[in-house]
Amino acid sequence: MNVKLKGLVQEIEPLLVQYRRNFHKYPEAGWTEFRTAAKITEILLELGYSVKLGADAVSKSDMLGVPPEEELKIHMNRAVKQGANPELVKEMEGGLTGIIAELNCGEGPTVALRFDMDANDIDEPKEEKHRPFREGFSSENPGVMHACGHDGHAAIGLGVARMIVKIKDLLQGKIRLIFQPGEEGVRGAKAMVARGAADGVDYILGAHIGFQATKNRQLICGTGHFLATSKLDVSFTGIPAHAGAAPEEGHNALLAAACAALNLHAISRHGKGSTRITVGTLNAGQARNVIPPHAEMKIETRGETTEINEYMVNSVRDIIAGAAKMYGVDYEIKIVGETISGESSPELITKVKDIAQGTGLFTELIDYVSFGASEDFTAFMTTVQKNGGQGTYMMIGSQLASGHHDYYFDFDEATLACSVELLLEIVVNLIGKCQEDRIINIT
Amino acid sequence: MNVKLKGLVQEIEPLLVQYRRNFHKYPEAGWTEFRTAAKITEILLELGYSVKLGADAVSKSDMLGVPPEEELKIHMNRAVKQGANPELVKEMEGGLTGIIAELNCGEGPTVALRFDMDANDIDEPKEEKHRPFREGFSSENPGVMHACGHDGHAAIGLGVARMIVKIKDLLQGKIRLIFQPGEEGVRGAKAMVARGAADGVDYILGAHIGFQATKNRQLICGTGHFLATSKLDVSFTGIPAHAGAAPEEGHNALLAAACAALNLHAISRHGKGSTRITVGTLNAGQARNVIPPHAEMKIETRGETTEINEYMVNSVRDIIAGAAKMYGVDYEIKIVGETISGESSPELITKVKDIAQGTGLFTELIDYVSFGASEDFTAFMTTVQKNGGQGTYMMIGSQLASGHHDYYFDFDEATLACSVELLLEIVVNLIGKCQEDRIINIT
Amino acid sequence: MNVKLKGLVQEIEPLLVQYRRNFHKYPEAGWTEFRTAAKITEILLELGYSVKLGADAVSKSDMLGVPPEEELKIHMNRAVKQGANPELVKEMEGGLTGIIAELNCGEGPTVALRFDMDANDIDEPKEEKHRPFREGFSSENPGVMHACGHDGHAAIGLGVARMIVKIKDLLQGKIRLIFQPGEEGVRGAKAMVARGAADGVDYILGAHIGFQATKNRQLICGTGHFLATSKLDVSFTGIPAHAGAAPEEGHNALLAAACAALNLHAISRHGKGSTRITVGTLNAGQARNVIPPHAEMKIETRGETTEINEYMVNSVRDIIAGAAKMYGVDYEIKIVGETISGESSPELITKVKDIAQGTGLFTELIDYVSFGASEDFTAFMTTVQKNGGQGTYMMIGSQLASGHHDYYFDFDEATLACSVELLLEIVVNLIGKCQEDRIINIT
Amino acid sequence: MNVKLKGLVQEIEPLLVQYRRNFHKYPEAGWTEFRTAAKITEILLELGYSVKLGADAVSKSDMLGVPPEEELKIHMNRAVKQGANPELVKEMEGGLTGIIAELNCGEGPTVALRFDMDANDIDEPKEEKHRPFREGFSSENPGVMHACGHDGHAAIGLGVARMIVKIKDLLQGKIRLIFQPGEEGVRGAKAMVARGAADGVDYILGAHIGFQATKNRQLICGTGHFLATSKLDVSFTGIPAHAGAAPEEGHNALLAAACAALNLHAISRHGKGSTRITVGTLNAGQARNVIPPHAEMKIETRGETTEINEYMVNSVRDIIAGAAKMYGVDYEIKIVGETISGESSPELITKVKDIAQGTGLFTELIDYVSFGASEDFTAFMTTVQKNGGQGTYMMIGSQLASGHHDYYFDFDEATLACSVELLLEIVVNLIGKCQEDRIINIT
Repeated sequence: MNVKLKGLVQEIEPLLVQYRRNFHKYPEAGWTEFRTAAKITEILLELGYSVKLGADAVSKSDMLGVPPEEELKIHMNRAVKQGANPELVKEMEGGLTGIIAELNCGEGPTVALRFDMDANDIDEPKEEKHRPFREGFSSENPGVMHACGHDGHAAIGLGVARMIVKIKDLLQGKIRLIFQPGEEGVRGAKAMVARGAADGVDYILGAHIGFQATKNRQLICGTGHFLATSKLDVSFTGIPAHAGAAPEEGHNALLAAACAALNLHAISRHGKGSTRITVGTLNAGQARNVIPPHAEMKIETRGETTEINEYMVNSVRDIIAGAAKMYGVDYEIKIVGETISGESSPELITKVKDIAQGTGLFTELIDYVSFGASEDFTAFMTTVQKNGGQGTYMMIGSQLASGHHDYYFDFDEATLACSVELLLEIVVNLIGKCQEDRIINIT
Repeated sequence: MNVKLKGLVQEIEPLLVQYRRNFHKYPEAGWTEFRTAAKITEILLELGYSVKLGADAVSKSDMLGVPPEEELKIHMNRAVKQGANPELVKEMEGGLTGIIAELNCGEGPTVALRFDMDANDIDEPKEEKHRPFREGFSSENPGVMHACGHDGHAAIGLGVARMIVKIKDLLQGKIRLIFQPGEEGVRGAKAMVARGAADGVDYILGAHIGFQATKNRQLICGTGHFLATSKLDVSFTGIPAHAGAAPEEGHNALLAAACAALNLHAISRHGKGSTRITVGTLNAGQARNVIPPHAEMKIETRGETTEINEYMVNSVRDIIAGAAKMYGVDYEIKIVGETISGESSPELITKVKDIAQGTGLFTELIDYVSFGASEDFTAFMTTVQKNGGQGTYMMIGSQLASGHHDYYFDFDEATLACSVELLLEIVVNLIGKCQEDRIINIT
Repeated sequence: MNVKLKGLVQEIEPLLVQYRRNFHKYPEAGWTEFRTAAKITEILLELGYSVKLGADAVSKSDMLGVPPEEELKIHMNRAVKQGANPELVKEMEGGLTGIIAELNCGEGPTVALRFDMDANDIDEPKEEKHRPFREGFSSENPGVMHACGHDGHAAIGLGVARMIVKIKDLLQGKIRLIFQPGEEGVRGAKAMVARGAADGVDYILGAHIGFQATKNRQLICGTGHFLATSKLDVSFTGIPAHAGAAPEEGHNALLAAACAALNLHAISRHGKGSTRITVGTLNAGQARNVIPPHAEMKIETRGETTEINEYMVNSVRDIIAGAAKMYGVDYEIKIVGETISGESSPELITKVKDIAQGTGLFTELIDYVSFGASEDFTAFMTTVQKNGGQGTYMMIGSQLASGHHDYYFDFDEATLACSVELLLEIVVNLIGKCQEDRIINIT
Repeated sequence: MNVKLKGLVQEIEPLLVQYRRNFHKYPEAGWTEFRTAAKITEILLELGYSVKLGADAVSKSDMLGVPPEEELKIHMNRAVKQGANPELVKEMEGGLTGIIAELNCGEGPTVALRFDMDANDIDEPKEEKHRPFREGFSSENPGVMHACGHDGHAAIGLGVARMIVKIKDLLQGKIRLIFQPGEEGVRGAKAMVARGAADGVDYILGAHIGFQATKNRQLICGTGHFLATSKLDVSFTGIPAHAGAAPEEGHNALLAAACAALNLHAISRHGKGSTRITVGTLNAGQARNVIPPHAEMKIETRGETTEINEYMVNSVRDIIAGAAKMYGVDYEIKIVGETISGESSPELITKVKDIAQGTGLFTELIDYVSFGASEDFTAFMTTVQKNGGQGTYMMIGSQLASGHHDYYFDFDEATLACSVELLLEIVVNLIGKCQEDRIINIT
């Protein structure tokens, strides 16, 4: 079976590259993936998947870090201009750009695969040394770039979708494909989980191209030590006053923010695990001689566990409230991103490793890495695990032109077909009809 | 008349010195003036004054900065051992050590004179170079010393009391003598004013030996620019925790206090007048490796006007509350001293200057000084002024051994008789029967 | 003579309005007054004044708050496009836009008049209710507006220049006209004083339209209690680091700035006079999850005296250095504006009042107001006073459409001729040939 | 052999209890263990050990947190009064209270055992419920109490010393017994290591009664994850000034300390391991109305590794220096305790476990615990390990009356004999002549 599958996948390799480059050319940041999602939806529908889009896939009230309404409108128009189906875009109004697609292949367990689609707020370089530019698929959208590989993830998702249909008869169970918006800033998973994306799932798998697997033909079968994290936007609003004539009439938002920033960093370490707190930006005031009436901060907390991160966020809330009280200013705290901690299931890691070994695709198999960073795949995985299922997050090796989120980021497109084949093998092994001999003939 | 009065006063000069040295030997800090007040009361009663003591002179609920009950008890016992009348001491239970004495000399205006009686929390030096020690009248009460001259004030008060009785027939009006506890830390005046000490008064006079009048035979006739001030004791109470094992379980009172201290000093300047804020002491924590569960601060605010000081105190309250909120600790703010701003009445200043000139007692007469500090005489004076009366606060020149509140402080006792004579002349001129010729014969 | 002068002045009233509106239409912020200064220079040269421009009028090394070279270049081009003489503009390269013009009218004292020329960084409203827009002379330069009246000051200066020539024969002494750039932010005077603008002057006069004189025909003859002030731009430069992976590798400029901001506001009050400190703006950081590598603050100090302001600036320097040390970051402190305190000369105030009375121009004459704000006219005035001369700063009444620096600011143009006449009368009285009868015939 | 040894040990059990109670009755805090060390030295000499005391055992310049000279003098006198040999006490002048004793039992490896001797700054309760009081051996030294079990450690050390001599002929190697002062506050080990206490050692063993082994007959064979730590005393010295009259003349030590405290807690977390920072106490100022001229803080840092702790201490130094600069105050930083991180040697843990198993003394054997706290045994152990040797730190189970450092702390004295036997078995197994059959007859 391996050979045959491999052959099939290789057949679609050009298509995978084409998908990837198309997504790369029209990158879309979190909650604005109107074109990407419309394209994916069209293909999934064509392939016969039952597709939930918009409000059926995303719980509006659980979306985090959504751009303002006007900005979303602009992106909807842009997407249509860039070839998106207007009716599908309309369905995603408000940024509801998530997709849940399902294919029922008979009675059996449900396997979910999750792919993220969003790009980064980075200007792609127009330089010869940068392959996407040199080969003509660099970003058409100023200030936005696929610098993390999610263009590849989305392409892999479509490749898997296409192949699954081909081997449908060999399976007995359900395939669920989840295309998630807003992974950057951990903004999107929560709203899809809240809409049921992880319900009824027995196995969930996610993967990232590259990261700690920076060589081709390398596979990390499971990832853990995902940090829980929260992203908070805080603003203080005071009252301006002339700094010379009547400073006492002012309510100083800048000082409230400065005081908060210091004390936030002084939040006590936690005895049960590591924490992080960063006030990444602080902008306050309007003129040298005016008591500053407003201040804004972008804050990030992390915790080794969800509980520890909650401790951090609660401490942040107290400090912001206290600083506002001190200076008689109003404040607002917005959670614009948040995810929990997580661990891949050891049993599934073992299974993945066995399967991967069988494929002959990899020269190096690593059981597990500690991530020490955040990914909102944990929201899906933890839900599945709580319901008795298993999940794992893999890293699929790829040689990188530069690190993730760097503007020279690029990966080796050979990873695309390799990833599709791996995922198919995993699916076949998890819900295939005859798992023993693992020989499957498809024509 | 002047000559005659002078003669009389000189007669009692030895008595004044004896009073002063007696008070100096048994100094008593604010609200513990049991012995001093008992001695004064006995003499006033003997002289025929109608005397209000204890709850009749002091409003319990308006007392500021009162020592704890047990400490007061200890002082009551000490006072009795040091010769105080036990019954009078009993009447002052709870620290009600103020005295309002009145002598009715017929229909006419009421003139009030105010004298403060309390000593400082200072250890008096046992050194030959220090006259009170050399001449055998230095403090018998460890940790307490008359280092501001209130022993002299009390002696002057008794001298005036004694002389007024002698010249009673020359007067038409009422004389009220107010002996105030707890002037240090501006703690006592409020409670006496609340009990009516300043009611019905037409003229009120207060005086301080020395201060800006540091030469004998110098008189400052009026003082103004008294700063309003508040003295606050602030405590924070958190929860201790092991600093290594579980720091997150602590609620850090030290950090709340440190944060408060910084932000208190950052209270905005006021456009309408000068302000002061000082965290004079901060003591927090119990051990190097325990999250500090308690912290205490002694704070002082000042304002050019009562309103400005109120702005300061309100800001202090907000900052303390905010700092407590930040660190999840409890707090308590105690006002342990407070007084308002004030200005001597220009008309009375002029009158006093004229009278002083007539006495020939002084070689230098200064109309007015700006105080730039605080004295709770303002509580009496402002009440009198609000009711249509006049008040002034004088400084009576005296060569000092060292500055006020220094432990080598001592004044020239010649000032005592001079002060008594000045005050008598003022009284005679304000409510004397024949003011025109100012010649009064007393025998 | 008064009448005659008045007649003459009224004659040129239309010209004054024309000048003012021309300057208003092409407003130029501090050190970019290329067009304004070129226009003024051309007229002064035409009138026969000896004119110093560029490096002869401004000491380059003493200029404060100068825009970057490229920005200056852009403004030079703009100015030429807007009609400035290219050669004169060339002479002012680097922003040296001050002018010192002199007319020698024989042996006698030197009278200097100072006019400021710069506009504000404000967008002028394009609204019918705003007269400059309605009558077609609102700003052609986006983001810049004459919202303080310096357009009027410059016009008055030209009016005076023109009239002085007419009455030249009546005078015996020197007239010096100083046109100053960059008064906003107190940036320009220092560099002109350093170049000798105030040297050899016996009388110096400055004036502001409006301010505390908000009614037509009102004159404030002298101003004092000018606060010394410094404007500081502070930047911190640290090292960025990933906030999750290696926060300890960062050197946090945001925290250095936040810490500095708090402690700056906590600089101790001063016992000898009032102070101000304001961190008006703070901008720091680049992304939520990056240890912030840079921070910038705009700071302002004030002091009741130059010494007190120096105390403030020295304290600022210590705090900035300390905060940088704390966080291992570099810092830079730039003084972008600064001026000393000052007081008008009482004798000159009296003279001005007498002269003003004689003119019949005013219905309300006020001797003196306390300014409580800052104006770098003090740099000229104090130099003159130190050299034995006299100076005063007047406020010439004018009904205002809205307060200074508000974008609806506008003044009553009747003030222009009134001001010219007042200044001429003052000149004639200070260095006129026959001062006794004050009757001068000019034809 | 086990049985025989056991019998012998049981024989001396009463002696062990007697030792322990004697030490308990005369507890001595760090660097004042004059009596304890003199008693131990006398016994060791008597037993035939070669003993180094005073300057031969402790490097004066490496002692941390030594009390002032006068205090040491008082303790020397006290010790003599409490029965210490005056000549030995004299040898320990300056607090050099460490002992290195050695017994040469032939050619072979060197085994070192380390025992700490110091008590805690705690008042022992005089209550019936507290056994040491009830049974008459509670502290005679006010404010000092053995509340951590070091009295037991010292007694065990003497027990081992005595037994080793008995089985001397069975051994081939060297025994070194290290009695360490000042373990509390991690003050003593460094100075003994600097004097060579750990040089030439092949195996080093340390043990603590109780801690995480709180049941009798429980043994933890190895401990790791010792945190590196530093204890710092910081003082700031400024200049006092009257808070009302001339606050600007003060240099505010309280604000420097408050600012430092906040920023110390804001030291960035470390990406490579956990950290701790605690300002445990802060005491500043002298009076409410005086700018505070002095402030003192007790600080503790910890790091998962020695490098991380160094990062913390360096950050502390920068922040203290910066805060002092801010407020123009002087500062002093004293390291009063410090130790490095450490890990027990896995091979030795395994050996200890095997040996312990063979003894039959324990019902529960735990390989390893993570300590997460600090012990300066690491200074010895790490030195031995660097030189190619092995070390381990054990916890020997004992039922406790209350937790360590609590004033009701007490342990089960049955632990004493059990510990002595365990240590002897370890020694015999490490350097015994015939290790195979482990049957040794001693009579």
